[in-house]
Amino acid sequence: MEPFQRIAIIGMGLIGSSIARAARHRFPDVIIQASDSDTGVVARARELGLADSVAEHPAEVVEGAELIILAVPLGAFATVATAIAPHLAAGAIVSDVGSAKQTVIEALQPVLPESVHLIPAHPVAGTEQSGPDAGFASLFEGRWCIVTPPRGADARACERVVQFWRALGSTVEVMEARHHDLVLAATSHIPHLIAYSVVGTAADLEDVTRGEVIKYSAGGFRDFTRIAASNPTMWRDVFLTNRDAVLEVLGRVTEDLAALQKAIRWGDGDTLFQRFTQSRDIRRAIIEAGQDTPAPDFGRPHKPD
Amino acid sequence: MEPFQRIAIIGMGLIGSSIARAARHRFPDVIIQASDSDTGVVARARELGLADSVAEHPAEVVEGAELIILAVPLGAFATVATAIAPHLAAGAIVSDVGSAKQTVIEALQPVLPESVHLIPAHPVAGTEQSGPDAGFASLFEGRWCIVTPPRGADARACERVVQFWRALGSTVEVMEARHHDLVLAATSHIPHLIAYSVVGTAADLEDVTRGEVIKYSAGGFRDFTRIAASNPTMWRDVFLTNRDAVLEVLGRVTEDLAALQKAIRWGDGDTLFQRFTQSRDIRRAIIEAGQDTPAPDFGRPHKPD
Repeated sequence: MEPFQRIAIIGMGLIGSSIARAARHRFPDVIIQASDSDTGVVARARELGLADSVAEHPAEVVEGAELIILAVPLGAFATVATAIAPHLAAGAIVSDVGSAKQTVIEALQPVLPESVHLIPAHPVAGTEQSGPDAGFASLFEGRWCIVTPPRGADARACERVVQFWRALGSTVEVMEARHHDLVLAATSHIPHLIAYSVVGTAADLEDVTRGEVIKYSAGGFRDFTRIAASNPTMWRDVFLTNRDAVLEVLGRVTEDLAALQKAIRWGDGDTLFQRFTQSRDIRRAIIEAGQDTPAPDFGRPHKPD
Repeated sequence: MEPFQRIAIIGMGLIGSSIARAARHRFPDVIIQASDSDTGVVARARELGLADSVAEHPAEVVEGAELIILAVPLGAFATVATAIAPHLAAGAIVSDVGSAKQTVIEALQPVLPESVHLIPAHPVAGTEQSGPDAGFASLFEGRWCIVTPPRGADARACERVVQFWRALGSTVEVMEARHHDLVLAATSHIPHLIAYSVVGTAADLEDVTRGEVIKYSAGGFRDFTRIAASNPTMWRDVFLTNRDAVLEVLGRVTEDLAALQKAIRWGDGDTLFQRFTQSRDIRRAIIEAGQDTPAPDFGRPHKPD
């Protein structure tokens, strides 16, 4: 299957700029057309040479593109799709990198012309940083990318998107959009929501100062602050967009947390011990699956012994 | 002030073995007597040469020691103190590394002879790993150590403990035990409880398999599994021992989480955005305070661009 000759990336943040770098690295001759609604980001993307051309308006960069990737917050999808729809070439593939998929399909399908293929995708990769300077070409290597073609999607278009992500170093899984949304609620959205929540709570306690929270953060809290430093606009949109799955998993989380709370109140050490023990197996499995570093403390710098 | 000539460390896990290594590194001539109730750990500590002598029973190693450090789970404190009490030299200092302090004072004071000084301490440092092989000499460098002398404690004994931790590279803060317990509930105990809880919930969902949770953990979940891989016995005891402070902060956490849940249910993006934005400032302050690495994704290995 032929690789894409011309791609358009809408949004030059962490993910969009990483795709640009990775695509350029893997396909030196590909023509990359990029846009970002922030003029500062446009200027910076040009300085960094991330694309062959960078514009402010998405409609300007999709013309002639075989693959168009939406890498903007989910809340901007419908607006972008409406803006680019009249300019899309027949047979073009519209994809994205959004962290929720069912609503993406529902928002984009009515707006896009029938002559283009909608093949949503979600690279499960990122850091807590944002913007075009934060991206890097190897971000997707060894990471999963989930592709969620709608019912009746063109098989060849889907396969081309799968091949594209494989070329960027990802392992690809094709999944139903609704199931994706539930899985990601558990592995990504809920951890983010809880990290944001706990960081906010700790910062607002009456009897513990913010200075104390910062000083003694090495006891565990600082791990939460990394996740909670992620892009607030992007995450607001994730929660608004994947509402049902997030609320479903959150219900289970608060239920289980209440059970631990009860065990603490009643001094039930056996329940606590049993619950705490099973987590180690999951950690081990994640490391064995190559999804995290085996280094203690994430390999944070400590002087050697 | 003279450094200690002879110290006893009860418990050769991550923290106890790190103290042994750091003390040896800083004071080459100090005599270190260690014990551990696990015969496998005793053998390993001997192989590693962590101490001048290693025994199974704590009573065997405290004789003649000027400083005795309890580095066992909090639930074992009373038993250890009762066992060592008859063997302590007059004027000896008994300290510890426990993550809760008020109950330590309450448990140890009635058991220890009046001729010894109880000066509890808590180095805010660690990794998710356990056991004598997991320790390293630089664990305490650049970290905080909180010393919580009881009312009426000997000022000179307190100062010697402070000096000891400074020599190991820590910055020391003297604090009231009750306040310590509340601060650490927020910065350490609650993050651990929530990480354990969320990891358990995600592993037990009906509609998402454990394999899926592991595969797609790079979206945030894997950070939680690191914290939730910590020693289950130690953490069970922390929650049983610091019950009141943990329940107090947990009440605030569930309250704030319920507010976010409501915002999601009602599509209140402004509340979400506002809450998510303030976390970035805390993250920045933690990095500026030298309490975490500024590297994205904790410096997890990614190939350079």
